[in-house]
Amino acid sequence: MLLSRYFLPVLKESPRDATIVSHQYMLRAGMIKQSSAGIYSWLPLGFKVLKRIEQIVHEEQERAGHIAIQMPTIQSAELWRESGRYDDYGEEMLRIKDRHDHDMLFTPTAEELVTDIFRSHVSSYKALPLTLYQIQWKFRDERRPRFGVMRGREFYMKDGYNFDLTKEDAMHAYNRHLVSYLRTYERMGLQAIPMRADSGPIGGDDTHEFLVLAETGESEVFYDSAVTDLTFGDREIDYDDVAQCAGVMEEFTTKYARTDETHDEALFAEVPADRQRTARGIEVGQIFYFGTKYSEAMGATVQGPDGKPTPVHMGSHGIGVSRLLGAIIEASHDDKGIIWPEGVTPFHVGIVNLKQGDDEADAACQALYDQVAALGLEALYDDRDERAGAKFGTMDLIGLPWRITVGPRGLKNGVVELTSRKTGESEEMAPDAAIAKIEDIYRKHGLVK
Amino acid sequence: MLLSRYFLPVLKESPRDATIVSHQYMLRAGMIKQSSAGIYSWLPLGFKVLKRIEQIVHEEQERAGHIAIQMPTIQSAELWRESGRYDDYGEEMLRIKDRHDHDMLFTPTAEELVTDIFRSHVSSYKALPLTLYQIQWKFRDERRPRFGVMRGREFYMKDGYNFDLTKEDAMHAYNRHLVSYLRTYERMGLQAIPMRADSGPIGGDDTHEFLVLAETGESEVFYDSAVTDLTFGDREIDYDDVAQCAGVMEEFTTKYARTDETHDEALFAEVPADRQRTARGIEVGQIFYFGTKYSEAMGATVQGPDGKPTPVHMGSHGIGVSRLLGAIIEASHDDKGIIWPEGVTPFHVGIVNLKQGDDEADAACQALYDQVAALGLEALYDDRDERAGAKFGTMDLIGLPWRITVGPRGLKNGVVELTSRKTGESEEMAPDAAIAKIEDIYRKHGLVK
Repeated sequence: MLLSRYFLPVLKESPRDATIVSHQYMLRAGMIKQSSAGIYSWLPLGFKVLKRIEQIVHEEQERAGHIAIQMPTIQSAELWRESGRYDDYGEEMLRIKDRHDHDMLFTPTAEELVTDIFRSHVSSYKALPLTLYQIQWKFRDERRPRFGVMRGREFYMKDGYNFDLTKEDAMHAYNRHLVSYLRTYERMGLQAIPMRADSGPIGGDDTHEFLVLAETGESEVFYDSAVTDLTFGDREIDYDDVAQCAGVMEEFTTKYARTDETHDEALFAEVPADRQRTARGIEVGQIFYFGTKYSEAMGATVQGPDGKPTPVHMGSHGIGVSRLLGAIIEASHDDKGIIWPEGVTPFHVGIVNLKQGDDEADAACQALYDQVAALGLEALYDDRDERAGAKFGTMDLIGLPWRITVGPRGLKNGVVELTSRKTGESEEMAPDAAIAKIEDIYRKHGLVK
Repeated sequence: MLLSRYFLPVLKESPRDATIVSHQYMLRAGMIKQSSAGIYSWLPLGFKVLKRIEQIVHEEQERAGHIAIQMPTIQSAELWRESGRYDDYGEEMLRIKDRHDHDMLFTPTAEELVTDIFRSHVSSYKALPLTLYQIQWKFRDERRPRFGVMRGREFYMKDGYNFDLTKEDAMHAYNRHLVSYLRTYERMGLQAIPMRADSGPIGGDDTHEFLVLAETGESEVFYDSAVTDLTFGDREIDYDDVAQCAGVMEEFTTKYARTDETHDEALFAEVPADRQRTARGIEVGQIFYFGTKYSEAMGATVQGPDGKPTPVHMGSHGIGVSRLLGAIIEASHDDKGIIWPEGVTPFHVGIVNLKQGDDEADAACQALYDQVAALGLEALYDDRDERAGAKFGTMDLIGLPWRITVGPRGLKNGVVELTSRKTGESEEMAPDAAIAKIEDIYRKHGLVK
């Protein structure tokens, strides 16, 4: 993308009402614009990151064998009366009357609707196991929306639902989700720690939240510091292998790690004193097993191997897709701006032309731009007639992980400058060497084939 | 995808309330499920096609230099009061009160919100031309929703908005959209004819609708049969070339083609009698130029080259993404089911194993499946233990354009059968030859690189 043709409305000043750094940088980098309290438009740069995150979530869900569907945002209240949640949900549910005076609502979650799909179409245990998921806009009418996309009212969420014949099968689905979530967050450059949590209005006993440690987190968390040494890495996983998935679950959830909702002082005291940590965390996902809560209330039964109708065991599993942008920025920034992890960066490399209009510099930038495109990657080329300082400032603010700087002086010596946003370190090298390094970096992330 | 692990709830019978063929087949093929009147869940097969269509729309918008954003579904009534449309819009607008009793609405279109984004961030003509677009869920509270996704209440739409300094520039944007829409529909295997239309609640004088001819179309259309001979084909286009885009516009809109809203008997009589046609059409898109209607009402001005504040010239442009599934099926089916055009098919090839459990047949199917995946394409492999008739029936119903049938008898002679869904013709050939032919077909559609 040529910056001269892009729409990147960066702001010099932080809007006053933005109190946390991710909200400030998302506004300043022209990623979002508030349209009403807790409701945002996603401007081009923000939308691009949202799509990168969505894509990773889709890929990891598919890898785990889960199947994508899409449910509507507006649902009838009827199903929610069947489950009993219509009255339970309180003021956070956006309730709507349509022109025929029917009670509708903007879905905050979709256990009821997906259970209705299931019971309408599945009657035999032979169709199990089954996990359906969607990535769709949700609405929760927060009383006091704040922190930008971190606690907005309209938000983008992946929500998945497993249907299994037995509790044992459903616990495998639970473990499978835990594994796929670990992979998902790591691809985004995040460490998200599974912590025992409270199930809230979803219901059920077994639930883990995934938390990213950050000073601005809303939850207080207590953990054994050894959990932060765990990484999933690039190990092979067979999602059908029950023991293997259970092993990962055990590895990642045995050490003490809880939110304040389930914190237990006595258990925490058993953690070696030098490893006891208290911190704040941002919730970026949650998995639940709630058994037959919805299937019994709504008659979602299958004929079991014994021929008898059996209510299915279910769980649900969420990833806060739009909220993740905020969480990633909270975890990865400095005083100049955002530092995008390579897996989610909106553009893979920025190209800064120090002397726009200089034939040689223009041609070198264009050649680099084309070479990046030929790799299947995207460059943002700052082709504006601006001074270098302004160009660097914009690139630092929007946080592209790699920048190539091109100027007449370097070109005389056959070099350009490759700069890491994270370390700030620059290296002079031939343009082809810079491209080779970019290729190498993104090949590691699976973005160059 | 292995069919045994997929969720494809095909129905034997057509539900009674489905009166047109696309609605019937979408239900029978397990693509959608109604959740409330005019509101649907997209089941896995339907969701896959929806995503294919969305992807084509994105690619063609980007090619035309338009920039993707995403606006929220829930908007404040305030902006709609500024433009005067809050009261104009009538009962089709879904009006909502949030917990603080603020007037909100589910967006049926986004001229106001995008104009607000523009006026907040753009102040100089130097940022023009600019076209922002989104693909997002919309809601229109139809009094009598019908025809499945063709006239639903919640629907998926691409809506784009151009901002230009002069009417002349805005007309170039109009032409650029016309060209990009022609390309878009042709990639989906559709002929969509631009017809002079009425602007309705959007406003403005210049507007064309794109119509797909089909008996079940809601609009009566009148045209010179010569328009159906026009195709855009694979000609090169430079979207910055004003004259070239204007030439395409002229070529495609000079011959008589109008909906009943703007039909002119006297003009129609001038068409040679043997070329006068009356038919029915399905609207799949519309482009508008409405000048300064919104920019004046909402103060969206830029500083012009002369230093004076100038209201921008605007247009908006829509493609009915979810409706297109219905339109494509109306235009492409037979009495056995859907016939997907290659550009949008959910799976690129179906693999039918005539003797599941036979080692040789199973191995041959798996090898074909892997080879299809290696091309970057997706196969649906019917690995169920079902009789051949049922497997063929499902494949015909869901409409994959190519089917490979594998059986022990053929394998003895080293052949499988490649069948075209469209012509019904089958050809025996070696498995490698079948894969080579599949590769060749999809390479033409740009789906094999």
